[in-house]
Amino acid sequence: MTLPEKTIERLSGYRRILLDCLAKGKTHVYSHELAALNHITAVQVRRDMMLMGFSSMQRKGYGVKELIDAIGVLIDTKKGLNIAVVGLGNLGRAVTTYFRGKRSKLNVVAIFDVDPEKIGRIVAGVKCYSDNDLPKLVKEMDISIVVLTVPPEQAVKSAETLVACGIKGILNLTTVPLNIPPNVFLEEHDMITSIEKVAYFVKNHQG
Amino acid sequence: MTLPEKTIERLSGYRRILLDCLAKGKTHVYSHELAALNHITAVQVRRDMMLMGFSSMQRKGYGVKELIDAIGVLIDTKKGLNIAVVGLGNLGRAVTTYFRGKRSKLNVVAIFDVDPEKIGRIVAGVKCYSDNDLPKLVKEMDISIVVLTVPPEQAVKSAETLVACGIKGILNLTTVPLNIPPNVFLEEHDMITSIEKVAYFVKNHQG
Repeated sequence: MTLPEKTIERLSGYRRILLDCLAKGKTHVYSHELAALNHITAVQVRRDMMLMGFSSMQRKGYGVKELIDAIGVLIDTKKGLNIAVVGLGNLGRAVTTYFRGKRSKLNVVAIFDVDPEKIGRIVAGVKCYSDNDLPKLVKEMDISIVVLTVPPEQAVKSAETLVACGIKGILNLTTVPLNIPPNVFLEEHDMITSIEKVAYFVKNHQG
Repeated sequence: MTLPEKTIERLSGYRRILLDCLAKGKTHVYSHELAALNHITAVQVRRDMMLMGFSSMQRKGYGVKELIDAIGVLIDTKKGLNIAVVGLGNLGRAVTTYFRGKRSKLNVVAIFDVDPEKIGRIVAGVKCYSDNDLPKLVKEMDISIVVLTVPPEQAVKSAETLVACGIKGILNLTTVPLNIPPNVFLEEHDMITSIEKVAYFVKNHQG
């Protein structure tokens, strides 16, 4: 069974909140709390909980640890997946640092860049390699996912190289829309869209 | 009329693609091209075009410039909105650089940080101020939107300060879920959710 994209987004969103609860020492959480923090309805939350085999909420709420584990069973892989960040600018550095230790099943194992000055650098414990070594290292390090953070003018060419290297999924964080074969999963997120959404609702609130 | 969030996301997505077309010298675009690049159906695209007053596509497709203008009328404000980036780490630097000159109606006018060493620095033409000056400068510079990129342990406190200063919309790029009053528009985007989505579909493709 493959779950819909929106379900994965919600499960990932719950886990983000549950990990935050765990860090704060909170052991139980109510569906309405998960709903409020995810900006969705409690009905939707309860439907998702049933999907994970939690048929009804206990009096003190759902167990935080149990839920985290259940989400992991549904969306994680057993042995984990290796990620490379391609493009070591500010965004590449931010992404690499941001991920460090956040999810046990997703590891940033390499960074790639074309700039000889950046090659060999270590960011958040991850080494930067030359783009020329991509085909070789993707195989050797068993990298299946790339976060693309190159400058816009390099985005299309980089994506072509990644597809040719056998990368299975790309998170495109550049401003350039990509067109890649359907056998490679592409997720595009432009920060500008998020900001435009905020701006639109701020404008309409102001009347 | 307030458009639904999903519509704003799609319109913003079209504009991203149209600006890319414009930069490449393309003057017309077909609905199926916009659909493919946005990963949605052509029917959905045509419905959105009708919303903008384009009742039917010309033989050579929609005019790129006309569409960009029509989207602007719907989602931009006339005088524009001012944005501050709060937190000058890698992500704050990336966001500030990324936005520079991208949208004429949305300007990053200030950066704020608590670190005395960072105050006074200029990133992509934008000056970094002390967090203590937030209340004063939000008013003086007419800042209505903040992109929050502080370290996780500062996220909740920062958000409280921003709400107290009269900020109207927050794009939360920290890993910490926020709970803010309903009169402030909150958009949260955790990169980890995007990556988890890619990972899930990569896993399921591999079988």
